[in-house]
Amino acid sequence: MTLYDIALLIGAECSNTDIDIVSMNTLKEAKRGEISFLSDSKYEKELALTQASAVILPASKAPLLPDGVIALSSEEPYLSVAKLSRYFAKPINDEQTPPAIGSNVVIYPTAHIENGSVIGNNTTLMSGVYIGTNVKIGSNVTLYPNVVIYRDCIIGDNVIIHAGSVIGSDGFGYAHTKTGEHVKLYQNGNVIIEDDVEIGANTTVDCAVFGSTHIKRGVKIDNLVQIGHNCIIGEYSIMVSQSGVAGSTTLGRNVVMGGQSATAGHLTVAPFTTLAARAGVTKSINKGGVYGGFPLMEHKMWLKLQAKIAKMIQS
Amino acid sequence: MTLYDIALLIGAECSNTDIDIVSMNTLKEAKRGEISFLSDSKYEKELALTQASAVILPASKAPLLPDGVIALSSEEPYLSVAKLSRYFAKPINDEQTPPAIGSNVVIYPTAHIENGSVIGNNTTLMSGVYIGTNVKIGSNVTLYPNVVIYRDCIIGDNVIIHAGSVIGSDGFGYAHTKTGEHVKLYQNGNVIIEDDVEIGANTTVDCAVFGSTHIKRGVKIDNLVQIGHNCIIGEYSIMVSQSGVAGSTTLGRNVVMGGQSATAGHLTVAPFTTLAARAGVTKSINKGGVYGGFPLMEHKMWLKLQAKIAKMIQS
Amino acid sequence: MTLYDIALLIGAECSNTDIDIVSMNTLKEAKRGEISFLSDSKYEKELALTQASAVILPASKAPLLPDGVIALSSEEPYLSVAKLSRYFAKPINDEQTPPAIGSNVVIYPTAHIENGSVIGNNTTLMSGVYIGTNVKIGSNVTLYPNVVIYRDCIIGDNVIIHAGSVIGSDGFGYAHTKTGEHVKLYQNGNVIIEDDVEIGANTTVDCAVFGSTHIKRGVKIDNLVQIGHNCIIGEYSIMVSQSGVAGSTTLGRNVVMGGQSATAGHLTVAPFTTLAARAGVTKSINKGGVYGGFPLMEHKMWLKLQAKIAKMIQS
Repeated sequence: MTLYDIALLIGAECSNTDIDIVSMNTLKEAKRGEISFLSDSKYEKELALTQASAVILPASKAPLLPDGVIALSSEEPYLSVAKLSRYFAKPINDEQTPPAIGSNVVIYPTAHIENGSVIGNNTTLMSGVYIGTNVKIGSNVTLYPNVVIYRDCIIGDNVIIHAGSVIGSDGFGYAHTKTGEHVKLYQNGNVIIEDDVEIGANTTVDCAVFGSTHIKRGVKIDNLVQIGHNCIIGEYSIMVSQSGVAGSTTLGRNVVMGGQSATAGHLTVAPFTTLAARAGVTKSINKGGVYGGFPLMEHKMWLKLQAKIAKMIQS
Repeated sequence: MTLYDIALLIGAECSNTDIDIVSMNTLKEAKRGEISFLSDSKYEKELALTQASAVILPASKAPLLPDGVIALSSEEPYLSVAKLSRYFAKPINDEQTPPAIGSNVVIYPTAHIENGSVIGNNTTLMSGVYIGTNVKIGSNVTLYPNVVIYRDCIIGDNVIIHAGSVIGSDGFGYAHTKTGEHVKLYQNGNVIIEDDVEIGANTTVDCAVFGSTHIKRGVKIDNLVQIGHNCIIGEYSIMVSQSGVAGSTTLGRNVVMGGQSATAGHLTVAPFTTLAARAGVTKSINKGGVYGGFPLMEHKMWLKLQAKIAKMIQS
Repeated sequence: MTLYDIALLIGAECSNTDIDIVSMNTLKEAKRGEISFLSDSKYEKELALTQASAVILPASKAPLLPDGVIALSSEEPYLSVAKLSRYFAKPINDEQTPPAIGSNVVIYPTAHIENGSVIGNNTTLMSGVYIGTNVKIGSNVTLYPNVVIYRDCIIGDNVIIHAGSVIGSDGFGYAHTKTGEHVKLYQNGNVIIEDDVEIGANTTVDCAVFGSTHIKRGVKIDNLVQIGHNCIIGEYSIMVSQSGVAGSTTLGRNVVMGGQSATAGHLTVAPFTTLAARAGVTKSINKGGVYGGFPLMEHKMWLKLQAKIAKMIQS
């Protein structure tokens, strides 16, 4: 897609419109031939260092771009990016190479494996499992019936995923028009699941917008858990049933999330933090400890509060 | 099924028992040849206008029926209706017409399409997808692996449904006997999903008891969301992960439901209402605004309350 | 596996190491040829009566064993058991006997039935259904598309399970090492679902560690509900969408759990208890009634509390 086409699509003006753009990326990750964007001023400092060929951004920020990086000015850059993302969305399958299957692999007849994928040794793909394009699955992995792995995801060794769980579905990202419509931000990223992870039944892990949602070594996740796009779940963390982590939140290592607990997005939870059942995290937690309640407080404070409330009822 | 058989089944008395009844319906929607019922006095005013051939209702309400509509008296009309619903339940497949498939449709080998269904152009049905009897799917639709669409549902154009989501499963409706058993109310309705809707992974949308559960144009729904029978989700509304709407609730347009928020059943939520994460709605909301907490309050009140609670802990 | 191998694996010392051990079990259920364990002192009184051939337990408790039962001493018995459980885990399929299918059974082409299973008369297994090894399914059962039943589960007559639900996935059980890693306790038990149960879409019911998770006659469960390992759900109980019961909790008969309500593990809820939506149960309920809130209180107290909070906001 040429810059000319892109400028036309998003209603931007720009010089040098015959450059060919092959994909979209973040300011930090973009390379020559890619287009990036500034939709949140907190990333402004990354403009100076970007390797992108072009950047969609408000006209007032164009002077911050390095020489040779072309500005496409837009007063609603996030909306422009969403409109454009559709054209760079990866198709469901675009690979010619048949899957590479290791030794001692058990594949049930109704499992479906797209091209470009690699399945490690001693791995079992049960009935109804779907393996997307370019997926890498390690050794000694068991995917129970009807597990779905979207394209480009990477699953380590000794991973167990129980029936019905979905890995790599699109993150929940939209730009909004002035008239209240939502424009889908097509997702380019993937999910990386490291070794020795176990995931329960009917759990969902969204792929990243760009880059990876990352579940680190030894994490254990229960049934019906939601993990949003671009989250990082630290080593040996535990997420109990019906808990959820909103997009771009990072849990440190050995975090425990109790049943039905949840965090908002774009937060950091310190290593060795325990969240009691139903805890609701709306701000980053900088110091490991035991927390509960919504809004969140130290768990012992929450217990104290409950005692006061009990007294209040009786009065 | 004759009225004689019906009267016998539910232990009612009625005259004119040789009339043939072909289905059940609400007082408002029922036509000649259908049977209806009065199980909640708030629908009493609809008795006078019903076109049903017969109505199950308490004996004391029989005089409210128009001439020519036969009364089947029952002191537990809802229980009678549930017992009867089983005999009018639609079978899983009862169509002879093979599916009508548009052009450029991609159907994976393990997808299953029942008879009577229609699939629009450029639509993709991935592995393990199930399309029930008489389902209509529009154009440019993507159903990711293992999506299940129950019979009679209608899906518009440009709809995306992510892996494992279930559309049109039975609403959660039972009548209860005096000894505490539950009698299933077999569901007759469907789900209508309009154009440009996106639904995440492992979400569930129940069909209507009668009529339709209705998801309007441009709605975006995240993963693991529950939508009960007969709900109406207004245009461009957004439902974040693990939120839920109980049966017969109507959201206006551009309602936003935060993560893990929920509403009770039979409510109305005003257009342009935003519900914070974990908000719990137990009464109708008549005026758009930002609400939070459980029980629900204006979000700024909720923040004020939290400040007071914080002070209370310290005292 | 000989006791010698077991002792080596868990680093225990024991005499009489040439005895052959065929499986693991609880102190109460273990028979000759099985190994058991004491990981929680509340089961100490069961030591004297155990029929196990050997027991893993702290050295100090060894004198409580009856004559002829061999002690394998371990200062972390639960961790030892977890390490060992992997070797006694049942394979996905180990049966030679083809499934026994009743009369008038409808099996869609993409359903998969493992060996050793029995399917009753007039039962329907829709597309993508998976029936594990040695599963027993009763008569007049409908399993909607993509329902998964893990090995050894037992499903009664007239059961309906909606699309995408998973029965018998592994309970969420791990032993923890001193360095914060988690060792999976492989699950040996099953799920028993009695007659006339209906389960909604995308719900998950975990198998028992040992023994059975038990859903009794006439229970009705909505969509996206979680039931942990070893739970007992009493006759005619109702669980509304997005509710959850943690491991080893018992609900009496006719318990009602409202939407998004939950209980902690190892509790008992009295028969005829109603839990309002969002109720959170952290202690056993000994007397039926209507409860709400988190922490839990009588529902009328909860309403009173809300009135006080409303007043507090205004002051």
